[in-house]
Amino acid sequence: MAKNIAILGASGYTGAELIRLVSFHPEMSIAALAADRKAGQAIGDVFPHLRHLGLPDLVKIEDIDFTDIDLVFCALPHGVGHKLVRDLPEKTKVVDLSADFRLTEAETYKKWYGLDHTAMDIQPDVAFGLPEFYRADIAKARITANTGCYVATSLLPLIPLLREKVIAPDPIVIDAKSGVSGAGRGLNEPMLFSEANEGFKAYGVGHHRHMGELDQELSKAAGVDVIASFTPHLVPMIRGMQATIYARGDAETAQQVLEATFADEACVDVLPLGGIPQTQHVKGSNICRIGLVPDRIEGRFIILSVLDNLMKGASGQAMQCANITLGLPETMGLPQVPVFP
Amino acid sequence: MAKNIAILGASGYTGAELIRLVSFHPEMSIAALAADRKAGQAIGDVFPHLRHLGLPDLVKIEDIDFTDIDLVFCALPHGVGHKLVRDLPEKTKVVDLSADFRLTEAETYKKWYGLDHTAMDIQPDVAFGLPEFYRADIAKARITANTGCYVATSLLPLIPLLREKVIAPDPIVIDAKSGVSGAGRGLNEPMLFSEANEGFKAYGVGHHRHMGELDQELSKAAGVDVIASFTPHLVPMIRGMQATIYARGDAETAQQVLEATFADEACVDVLPLGGIPQTQHVKGSNICRIGLVPDRIEGRFIILSVLDNLMKGASGQAMQCANITLGLPETMGLPQVPVFP
Amino acid sequence: MAKNIAILGASGYTGAELIRLVSFHPEMSIAALAADRKAGQAIGDVFPHLRHLGLPDLVKIEDIDFTDIDLVFCALPHGVGHKLVRDLPEKTKVVDLSADFRLTEAETYKKWYGLDHTAMDIQPDVAFGLPEFYRADIAKARITANTGCYVATSLLPLIPLLREKVIAPDPIVIDAKSGVSGAGRGLNEPMLFSEANEGFKAYGVGHHRHMGELDQELSKAAGVDVIASFTPHLVPMIRGMQATIYARGDAETAQQVLEATFADEACVDVLPLGGIPQTQHVKGSNICRIGLVPDRIEGRFIILSVLDNLMKGASGQAMQCANITLGLPETMGLPQVPVFP
Amino acid sequence: MAKNIAILGASGYTGAELIRLVSFHPEMSIAALAADRKAGQAIGDVFPHLRHLGLPDLVKIEDIDFTDIDLVFCALPHGVGHKLVRDLPEKTKVVDLSADFRLTEAETYKKWYGLDHTAMDIQPDVAFGLPEFYRADIAKARITANTGCYVATSLLPLIPLLREKVIAPDPIVIDAKSGVSGAGRGLNEPMLFSEANEGFKAYGVGHHRHMGELDQELSKAAGVDVIASFTPHLVPMIRGMQATIYARGDAETAQQVLEATFADEACVDVLPLGGIPQTQHVKGSNICRIGLVPDRIEGRFIILSVLDNLMKGASGQAMQCANITLGLPETMGLPQVPVFP
Repeated sequence: MAKNIAILGASGYTGAELIRLVSFHPEMSIAALAADRKAGQAIGDVFPHLRHLGLPDLVKIEDIDFTDIDLVFCALPHGVGHKLVRDLPEKTKVVDLSADFRLTEAETYKKWYGLDHTAMDIQPDVAFGLPEFYRADIAKARITANTGCYVATSLLPLIPLLREKVIAPDPIVIDAKSGVSGAGRGLNEPMLFSEANEGFKAYGVGHHRHMGELDQELSKAAGVDVIASFTPHLVPMIRGMQATIYARGDAETAQQVLEATFADEACVDVLPLGGIPQTQHVKGSNICRIGLVPDRIEGRFIILSVLDNLMKGASGQAMQCANITLGLPETMGLPQVPVFP
Repeated sequence: MAKNIAILGASGYTGAELIRLVSFHPEMSIAALAADRKAGQAIGDVFPHLRHLGLPDLVKIEDIDFTDIDLVFCALPHGVGHKLVRDLPEKTKVVDLSADFRLTEAETYKKWYGLDHTAMDIQPDVAFGLPEFYRADIAKARITANTGCYVATSLLPLIPLLREKVIAPDPIVIDAKSGVSGAGRGLNEPMLFSEANEGFKAYGVGHHRHMGELDQELSKAAGVDVIASFTPHLVPMIRGMQATIYARGDAETAQQVLEATFADEACVDVLPLGGIPQTQHVKGSNICRIGLVPDRIEGRFIILSVLDNLMKGASGQAMQCANITLGLPETMGLPQVPVFP
Repeated sequence: MAKNIAILGASGYTGAELIRLVSFHPEMSIAALAADRKAGQAIGDVFPHLRHLGLPDLVKIEDIDFTDIDLVFCALPHGVGHKLVRDLPEKTKVVDLSADFRLTEAETYKKWYGLDHTAMDIQPDVAFGLPEFYRADIAKARITANTGCYVATSLLPLIPLLREKVIAPDPIVIDAKSGVSGAGRGLNEPMLFSEANEGFKAYGVGHHRHMGELDQELSKAAGVDVIASFTPHLVPMIRGMQATIYARGDAETAQQVLEATFADEACVDVLPLGGIPQTQHVKGSNICRIGLVPDRIEGRFIILSVLDNLMKGASGQAMQCANITLGLPETMGLPQVPVFP
Repeated sequence: MAKNIAILGASGYTGAELIRLVSFHPEMSIAALAADRKAGQAIGDVFPHLRHLGLPDLVKIEDIDFTDIDLVFCALPHGVGHKLVRDLPEKTKVVDLSADFRLTEAETYKKWYGLDHTAMDIQPDVAFGLPEFYRADIAKARITANTGCYVATSLLPLIPLLREKVIAPDPIVIDAKSGVSGAGRGLNEPMLFSEANEGFKAYGVGHHRHMGELDQELSKAAGVDVIASFTPHLVPMIRGMQATIYARGDAETAQQVLEATFADEACVDVLPLGGIPQTQHVKGSNICRIGLVPDRIEGRFIILSVLDNLMKGASGQAMQCANITLGLPETMGLPQVPVFP
């Protein structure tokens, strides 16, 4: 029997993408869609592209009966998940797309998000939602904290290289670029078409809040403290993300490690040495594609990691985690053929 | 057992979209991919977004053994289909995306395409590939001539209104707009990013070659000769098509006819009277969405018809036809949830 | 001595474009910039692209001393101009970019804008700001009501053809398309990059408020009531506007009338018969470019009129009017070389 | 009397931009436009946006009489300039936008461009066309080798910091991004709208040919060999370029050096410490805008340098050099107000 799914935060872009994915899924069905400010509206009024699918209207979270819900996707702003998850029935699985459960230390959460972590008692039961490295944890956990988009893009190539000590932990430079949908659906002037189109800019330079999560996982992989230089940029496209990573180490060894690590992974595609991936070639799919190119400077190389920020960077990966935690085949229902052009 | 599919013209955009659709399809598998100039290349070299799918290399058409092929999608330039289709085994079904079999009169084909129609003997066995109106024909035919993108966008609302004599056959103005992918992958200056982006233009004004097909079908529906004013335009987006149609008649009656006609159609979505569709809300899906708005001038109204030119305007509709002609459920394998944003 | 210019509404896109134009102008200098909600801010905080120009900070309108101001550009929302203009010194010239003074009948203003026209006593002294047809009026008037962007695009070809009775007054279909900057800088969801990019839609179908102005001027030109079908659309580009106009008449006569009308006009460029203009080829300039193509239907033709909505559609034309009313050469300071690509 | 200008390579994007700039210039007039393959055509056929300007038709270079030409802009492909410049009259000044005269060593030229440098005898008389650092040389030189776009973007902040030894010469990481117009008007598949739009990619990773020029100038500034990691990327926008530069040193000292260096420069705008520039805010102008942000890692900072690749990255800077070498005011005729939005 199909699993009953609730999506909380269904009026945002990651929510819409989750609806798309659950609709494709042969073993899942949408039981409830919540969006507090838009509660009471038909989904077709909030997202006209979904109007023909016969979906339930949006409701308030408090009006959902979670009794028969097998899994909840939380696509809510940072800060509301701690209380919310505590109040859910014990047997309900949760995949949380916010940062609320990604950081294992309360101080780190406070530092980067300016909020108290009020669910530290639950935190030890949370799996870090990067399936390629935490698959077993996710299978057992009640709660999975889906990795952020910038962090997933960076960690997928960096974790194996740091674990295997193929690259030096310092300096690592991560120059990252995101499509505009990563900023969500909130109204602010820099995201207007006339402001964002035909332009390029950095933002959050030196202090972007995804850094806490990045430091935690890079350090864990390396076994020593790793602090990377990380600069996010905004690209005038809707979907897509790239990390250009500058590292020290032997390029051929690094290539071998990446190939070996991801040989059997359905959602990570390592190009041959010297190959250059493009974001548009993974659009709409749950693929992270990685290229590694030797620098002309001896002993250095450049890693290019691309994904669709709404898919492998958010909702696609959340579905991958959901499949794992529900005991379903990991890529079930994931449309792995990119939409190009 | 899955149907064996060959795609001829696999290195173009409609070819790539067909590969995407066949890959999703639970009852089809790709047996051969042909692209004459790029024969011998891996599909991943021609379309990097498809490299991880384990597809066969591109071959020449003449090197395909059609013996076990159940259906051929022809996504080739106009003019090569006549001979090609004649040479295929009798039992092989064909869905042709070119204009080669769309026109029932040899002179009309010659007039608009400048070529002799060399397969007039086969022509009577061809179904016109617009399933909502020619479903029974398609089910029986060996060859289906998939309707062109501009023509499908226009015919879906106009055929029922002309058949029911709800609108006057003259004047009908069709102001049509297409995303750039409709121009294909050929190299020419106006399609360069720096030329096409941030701009808008008409083209083929007064003499676009889709007019032959349009006249034929509008006249057949009306029972009298219908010649519409038709102007195509290029919009700086990859996918998407809209026809804005100006007609005389009673808006409410027209709305009722459209709603009745498409009530049970899975691929056509009629908005409530006054509703305005947007191309981005059907992107990636096989949906044609139609809105009808009364003009402020008594007795006139405006129809807005949108679709994804590579899907319901080309490859998606071709798959719909293929399902019908193979006896499969009509929308099997068609991803009907648009990719938005 | 340079003319002192005040720009009211300097924090919007037409305001920014006026600043650009006054900065180029050899005989004008910026004396005051007003933007009520952003009063007190440096222009560089509101428009970073202007930060290096040494411009005055934004102030409230009431804090401007208009004594030495030679001309005021009002780039304010509809509805505030009536009182404002009345309170300005008698000798101060005004070019108003809103609709407040475009309509000569109070009822018409009320009908389309939902507001009372509270300055009907001043209205008779207002010139309609379309210099190619109202140049003498503008030279004498204290106030010029700058023509709206859609209306200018449509009127430039249609006024001479209606005046000369080359086209029938009915039916005229105007299918118009605008870049997103025409919607201004206000925050609303459909103008977010992720919503507007890669999409196309109509809006205000059947009841767009520019219709009042359009009716007034078309009827005046024809000498009989003219009501055109008019549909605006949104194109995913920042700047640019096109009207595709369907009319009945003799194409060659119409071409001759257009060529004769605009032969000596610096800001209107008529292409040879059959020529197709593109919006990107007039971007950043004050040029309206017009093409006329015979339809395949005898006795009908299609007019394609393009301009930059922020230039000849708004601020450029306002500068043209300002030059005229101040007795300066009409194109002084107007950068007439488009920015392409 | 106005200077007579010839533009060689007038059918490319930098050629078109030069025409725009010369048209604005009060002391220059266009005497000849050359484009070998398109010789004989009207400029309006090659660049419709220029058709209303009364410009001369395109001719072959060999058909130009250079006798009265004061200055030649060479906007030709790499490799043809050596012979060409040698054959020009002694008194004709040259600003060359290609790489032919940028490298002072023949071997370096050969290494990066694969061609023999056949004008090494002239090379010592060439000025490096980066006016902020080579102004005096340019004033005296007959030939100026206009700096490449990526290199100008990088050198403007890096030269003063290396000269003053504020940053360590190793490692320097330059992660650079360019709009698509930088690729020119040549026909190739990756530059088609449908391929380049809605995507992001690196290219020339590890071996881009601008590296020779970069090494030369960085090393000269530092007084020791400097080899930076440099990765160019393609952004789906027409114009605009950014270099994100990662360096070691004291951020406040670096900020002071940048502010002092460019305090009196009209074409370089240094933001306050922590400021983030955007490419769209310098579009159409000859401004390079620089921001410097401390990294969270002690002793490191990030420089963000943006410009319009066709202006300060190519034709605008060429005009700046031309003004200097002709003894005119340096920014004469340069439209310094960006076109935004």
